[in-house]
Amino acid sequence: MSDFTFTLNATDGAARSGLIETIHGAIRTPAFMPVGTAATVKAMTPEAVAETGAEIILANTYHLMLRPGAMRIERLGGVRRFMNWPGPLLTDSGGFQVMSLAKLRTITDAGVTFQSHLDGSRHELTPERAVEIQRQLDSTIAMVLDECLRFPATEAEAAASMARSMAWAARSKAAYGAPPGYGLFGIVQGGVHENLRADSASALCEMGFHGYAIGGLAVGEGQEMMLDTLEATVPHLPADRPRYLMGVGKPDDLVGAVARGVDMFDCVLPTRSGRTAQAFTACGTVNLRNARHAADPRPLDASCACPACTNYGRAYLHHLAKAGEILGATLLSWHNLHYYQSLMAAMRAAITAQNFQSFARRFADEQARGDIEPL
Amino acid sequence: MSDFTFTLNATDGAARSGLIETIHGAIRTPAFMPVGTAATVKAMTPEAVAETGAEIILANTYHLMLRPGAMRIERLGGVRRFMNWPGPLLTDSGGFQVMSLAKLRTITDAGVTFQSHLDGSRHELTPERAVEIQRQLDSTIAMVLDECLRFPATEAEAAASMARSMAWAARSKAAYGAPPGYGLFGIVQGGVHENLRADSASALCEMGFHGYAIGGLAVGEGQEMMLDTLEATVPHLPADRPRYLMGVGKPDDLVGAVARGVDMFDCVLPTRSGRTAQAFTACGTVNLRNARHAADPRPLDASCACPACTNYGRAYLHHLAKAGEILGATLLSWHNLHYYQSLMAAMRAAITAQNFQSFARRFADEQARGDIEPL
Repeated sequence: MSDFTFTLNATDGAARSGLIETIHGAIRTPAFMPVGTAATVKAMTPEAVAETGAEIILANTYHLMLRPGAMRIERLGGVRRFMNWPGPLLTDSGGFQVMSLAKLRTITDAGVTFQSHLDGSRHELTPERAVEIQRQLDSTIAMVLDECLRFPATEAEAAASMARSMAWAARSKAAYGAPPGYGLFGIVQGGVHENLRADSASALCEMGFHGYAIGGLAVGEGQEMMLDTLEATVPHLPADRPRYLMGVGKPDDLVGAVARGVDMFDCVLPTRSGRTAQAFTACGTVNLRNARHAADPRPLDASCACPACTNYGRAYLHHLAKAGEILGATLLSWHNLHYYQSLMAAMRAAITAQNFQSFARRFADEQARGDIEPL
Repeated sequence: MSDFTFTLNATDGAARSGLIETIHGAIRTPAFMPVGTAATVKAMTPEAVAETGAEIILANTYHLMLRPGAMRIERLGGVRRFMNWPGPLLTDSGGFQVMSLAKLRTITDAGVTFQSHLDGSRHELTPERAVEIQRQLDSTIAMVLDECLRFPATEAEAAASMARSMAWAARSKAAYGAPPGYGLFGIVQGGVHENLRADSASALCEMGFHGYAIGGLAVGEGQEMMLDTLEATVPHLPADRPRYLMGVGKPDDLVGAVARGVDMFDCVLPTRSGRTAQAFTACGTVNLRNARHAADPRPLDASCACPACTNYGRAYLHHLAKAGEILGATLLSWHNLHYYQSLMAAMRAAITAQNFQSFARRFADEQARGDIEPL
């Protein structure tokens, strides 16, 4: 029970359904991880997050190391206890947000130094330190430090960056140790270059990780190029380890990636969209700020079992959005997370039933159908 | 069952405990009504509001008539259905907010015309229209339109304003009709002038209302003058009808007012304070933004059964406040409403047990004791 394991239960084409077991609980895959950046999934209680069906959440090392600080969280019993999330929790390494948020960053082979975007204080993140912080946070699944390249980049830039990331992965693994029931994931890099992706995957497999992430995608390359890169990368990853596509994505990204053998996802989209009145439904996205909903008593999605859809009409959700009320953010974040988790559950069921292809076709048809007619 | 009734169960000195029965459910008194300004108790789901022990909430006619509009809410089944609050709901008349929020308002004996603070649109509120809007909102308890005088005012100003309010009360009552199980409350005015308060109370009793509110207090006169005015007003109100002190207040205001025979309260303080990291506890107020809480794993109030106190430490609540996270507003609003409802329940129990005076003394002692020592 204290091992970190992955059991494959069913495959259907490249799509797979399985179970990750960790010291903090089990995760059915394909799995979507809601993002709790600063140790809270924005606008949601952890109980509500669990009610949507989430079995694992993600928190951001960059944000937590700056505020309230990794040592403070360690003394308070880890981020899961801090935020009252008893289940498994994954943290990124902090690298991605250092690149996107921090000021005056300097990257060398040693690691990265940067200034906090909050107060300008100076910090250093090395592969060893990134792993140490994630241990302090008591993350169930930690990620190796990697370099996140801007898109587009030349092949030479992508190759050099990937090589640095591979060296950092080896150092991350050496620093991590072997805490029982916890896991460390490597991250495949290499931009949109198939040969680099293959080399990166091979290098990581050689080192050996509990799981393999695919990083450096969803950075502006577009869905087609992302899915092509997945197709070129996944076959180089071992079948008996979970595969995690970082920072993705829209519902149709998830379906496309699961079809190509991905097991885990995280994205801010369901919660961020919830705070801007964008809802994901079986029939595509709905903007609840639109005046067409102002007098509409019908539920957002009549087939949805979430509180936003069972207890309220569109007119009320529209009203909350227009009035800037917090409850609007809560209800739509709840709905969106519920939709994402329902989509993952439907994909797991379709894989088990060996009809993933027809599921994916039906999904695309329903999305294309669009929202119900206005009243 | 379809009558609007008030049953007095126990008295202890001037303090009373009773039960209001309405078409939408019963309310134990003394009762505190959380404020749901725009048809949402800010940062809370209605289920969470009910879990704190609230049996009735308040919504603001001014805000709802402007957005989304009274007719729209009527077509959507009333504000209770709109916001999924199945229990009783009280609305104010809109007068107070016209005076405090609206632009370019003109008051005559006929009523008040004003411009919306949202879009500048012109509106009129007469006693008849204020009652009609509240019927459209399907408010369980409606309030007569009254004029809300600034403090301080001369006795002559207060007398003239009170006389206008009494004329408006009579017109409000005539317009309200007699919907079974619903109630209309009159509002005593007269500033801090005992003779005017007595005259106003007599005038309203002559008309006959389901309950009597005391308005025009908590406008800057201070607690002592407020309690003095209550003492001068309450004896002029009938014992067999609920008494409602509008817009009050801090926990010690509630205890002082219940001691003087008040049965109902509403105030934004618990929710507004929750959004600015101010918590009410048995040992006084606690500012969770204060650095002394940053590393403190202890609960906000070890004796409190709310989610903020049972699931989290002060360090986490401090972190949420510093990071501006929505969950911080939710948890502290929840705690504050839970504290207020627990205080009301404790007062009801003390009145029933005939020991309200010793309860009030213990309450004051605990409040004076202050927060627990820093770690």
